[in-house]
Amino acid sequence: MNGPPTAGILAIGDELLGGETLDRNSAWISSRLAELGIGTGEHRTVGDDASAIAGAFAELRSRHGVVISTGGLGPTLDDCTRPGLAESLGEPLVEDAEALAHLEAWFTGRGRPMPVANRTQALRPEGAICLDNPHGTAPGLLVEAEAGGLVACLPGPPREMQPMFLEQVRPRLAVAGEAVGRTRLVHACGAGESDLAARLGELMAPGRTPQVGITASHGVVTARIRSRGRAADVESQLDRAAEEIERRWAPYAFGRDATTLASATAADLVAGGRTLAVAESCTAGMLGEMLVAVSGASSFFEGGWLVYSNALKTSQLGVPESVLERHGAVSEPTAALLAMAAASRAGTDLALSVTGVAGPTGGSEHKPVGTVFIGLCDRRDGPARVRRFRFPGDRDAVRRRSATSALAMLRLHIAGAGGTPLLWEWPE
Amino acid sequence: MNGPPTAGILAIGDELLGGETLDRNSAWISSRLAELGIGTGEHRTVGDDASAIAGAFAELRSRHGVVISTGGLGPTLDDCTRPGLAESLGEPLVEDAEALAHLEAWFTGRGRPMPVANRTQALRPEGAICLDNPHGTAPGLLVEAEAGGLVACLPGPPREMQPMFLEQVRPRLAVAGEAVGRTRLVHACGAGESDLAARLGELMAPGRTPQVGITASHGVVTARIRSRGRAADVESQLDRAAEEIERRWAPYAFGRDATTLASATAADLVAGGRTLAVAESCTAGMLGEMLVAVSGASSFFEGGWLVYSNALKTSQLGVPESVLERHGAVSEPTAALLAMAAASRAGTDLALSVTGVAGPTGGSEHKPVGTVFIGLCDRRDGPARVRRFRFPGDRDAVRRRSATSALAMLRLHIAGAGGTPLLWEWPE
Repeated sequence: MNGPPTAGILAIGDELLGGETLDRNSAWISSRLAELGIGTGEHRTVGDDASAIAGAFAELRSRHGVVISTGGLGPTLDDCTRPGLAESLGEPLVEDAEALAHLEAWFTGRGRPMPVANRTQALRPEGAICLDNPHGTAPGLLVEAEAGGLVACLPGPPREMQPMFLEQVRPRLAVAGEAVGRTRLVHACGAGESDLAARLGELMAPGRTPQVGITASHGVVTARIRSRGRAADVESQLDRAAEEIERRWAPYAFGRDATTLASATAADLVAGGRTLAVAESCTAGMLGEMLVAVSGASSFFEGGWLVYSNALKTSQLGVPESVLERHGAVSEPTAALLAMAAASRAGTDLALSVTGVAGPTGGSEHKPVGTVFIGLCDRRDGPARVRRFRFPGDRDAVRRRSATSALAMLRLHIAGAGGTPLLWEWPE
Repeated sequence: MNGPPTAGILAIGDELLGGETLDRNSAWISSRLAELGIGTGEHRTVGDDASAIAGAFAELRSRHGVVISTGGLGPTLDDCTRPGLAESLGEPLVEDAEALAHLEAWFTGRGRPMPVANRTQALRPEGAICLDNPHGTAPGLLVEAEAGGLVACLPGPPREMQPMFLEQVRPRLAVAGEAVGRTRLVHACGAGESDLAARLGELMAPGRTPQVGITASHGVVTARIRSRGRAADVESQLDRAAEEIERRWAPYAFGRDATTLASATAADLVAGGRTLAVAESCTAGMLGEMLVAVSGASSFFEGGWLVYSNALKTSQLGVPESVLERHGAVSEPTAALLAMAAASRAGTDLALSVTGVAGPTGGSEHKPVGTVFIGLCDRRDGPARVRRFRFPGDRDAVRRRSATSALAMLRLHIAGAGGTPLLWEWPE
């Protein structure tokens, strides 16, 4: 094999194959491998079936130097990764004395005798070693292969799997030669995917270095810039491309890589020493939830009101009943009054309000499902500004787009670009 | 091939393989196929590379009667599903006149000329037909195969893909013979996975009919019961098994299939004609967000307060500064006062409060990261009851467990089992 090994990632579990549970582990592992310059060639998912698992291991090992599986290492009878790997290696399962001692100690430390079922977790294929699991009972498995390759089997729960990958698998992955692969992401919000793609033009041509692709999710559009080569060259190449994309995407571009719309907005608030409150009706906490997901939120976020009922809009934030009767709870005056009252009562510099028809019921001819008013009060500027939107999609999509658009409005306002047109805006 | 066909699901996109985006489409499609009695044998993900796509189609077609792909049908240069499928079929790409007319009409209807790049979306392998896409520009592709099998290529965005699957692919999937496969789920919250597994005992033995497996996610444990046979037999068999599991999991079991902890709690509130408000500190809207995700939430949910700062705890919900100074914002008295004030000010029968140390900073010796107090006020009963928890995991995990545990506390209280011990409870 020339160049660095590629990776094949295998997720194991009937609940994944049946569609009841989403596999988040494969994406996480691929992200970590990309940081090491190891590209992922393939993700696969198979069920709790030892021969399907054995077949998948055999095919992936024949194509990829690095094979990593998650799931199927539990103590219950539907956990088949150990026998599946043993079958693909043509090796018997043997009991690992050290792993058994660890298991027994794990239960003793929690004041419980070890259930008999857990003893199977100390089995390993003869040529494999066991990986310690500090956060659960399931030990992992590791088989070293030629040319820096390996096969690793990790448990399914992310809080067990992730530290095992980082502490025990990653150090064993040899980075072949000087060539590394790197990815940089640039995110934007407030414009459509096709408009933003058009602004990139020739940057997206196939075969071009670096390679640029774009994707969209819940109103956030992301450019993925990739390149491969010597680390220093690659980094400066990606930096230049990211700067160019940010220039073309201004003022919608808000950050790179792990930056979220909420964390970018938070950083802008903190940089300006400004504080925020929210008044949420149809989103009912989604906006607050996104903001507080940012660690350190207490330095800019005071809190807010979930004014889901009309009674709370009036009693807590002083929206007069006459306004609700004449204009409705989903209206420009209501959104404006909610934002102003939230800023005033919380004593913050800024406040956002959201009131809309998330559906599936409650729409009317003039305010169909998806109609949402978002208010922004900046106490420096006087009365709140309100924008009207009509978002596509179901209840969940309308609520997510509402929260995202509120953050996009706030971020553009702080950047001095408060008049920028926004996607799905729908003036009366 | 005997019996009904199995399915292979292929997700296409560098953003999936690189780990930047989660593939949610494959799970959704597998769930829909399971309803038809078609089991999924394999999920795969490959990148935006025509020959990798061609190879995956060839392997999946050799193993599965039904092959469905998502993604790679866009107008940009990194979209390679059309050439990949053509290569695997050994057929040239031809332009579909009807699809081209549709595309042109789509843009005309939106008052824009069709960009030149979109013309590639009207290409199809010679033996394929185009599937209409009412919600976007990308037509799908369909190749009928022998024995009721087919290959279908659908676009990646779920709001385009899902209606195309339901309206154009599903009707073409022949259900072979009388045998159907069915899955029933039973969900529980408040006890650990291993404890709930132990209660199932022999029900989880391999080879047993119906087959039972269990999984856990964010504190919710799910039993997956599967069987296959004549529809009427299978349904009654699954019903009996679900009832037995609910009996063994009492009082933690809260619902089946698509029921969520929030929707089950909502149904209990509506059935009892009772109303709810929330006062959230560390969760900051997560609890409200989960409750309002249930359509019709206005019949039981009034709203609440995001009392993230101490100032709002005092000014909006009357927690005395002396209580905050003496006991702290993360304390039993604060949680009790927040819940009582929320019920009283919102005029609801019930209120939940959450205050805790979500981390990564803010922990102390006596209140380490993960320490959370949850208060429940039922105005029939007088003062609020507070439970103390110590949840494992990072900031996001602690906040999710907090919201989930608050709902579990409320649900058990309504069921008259308010004294039931809860997972991660940690009395002083």
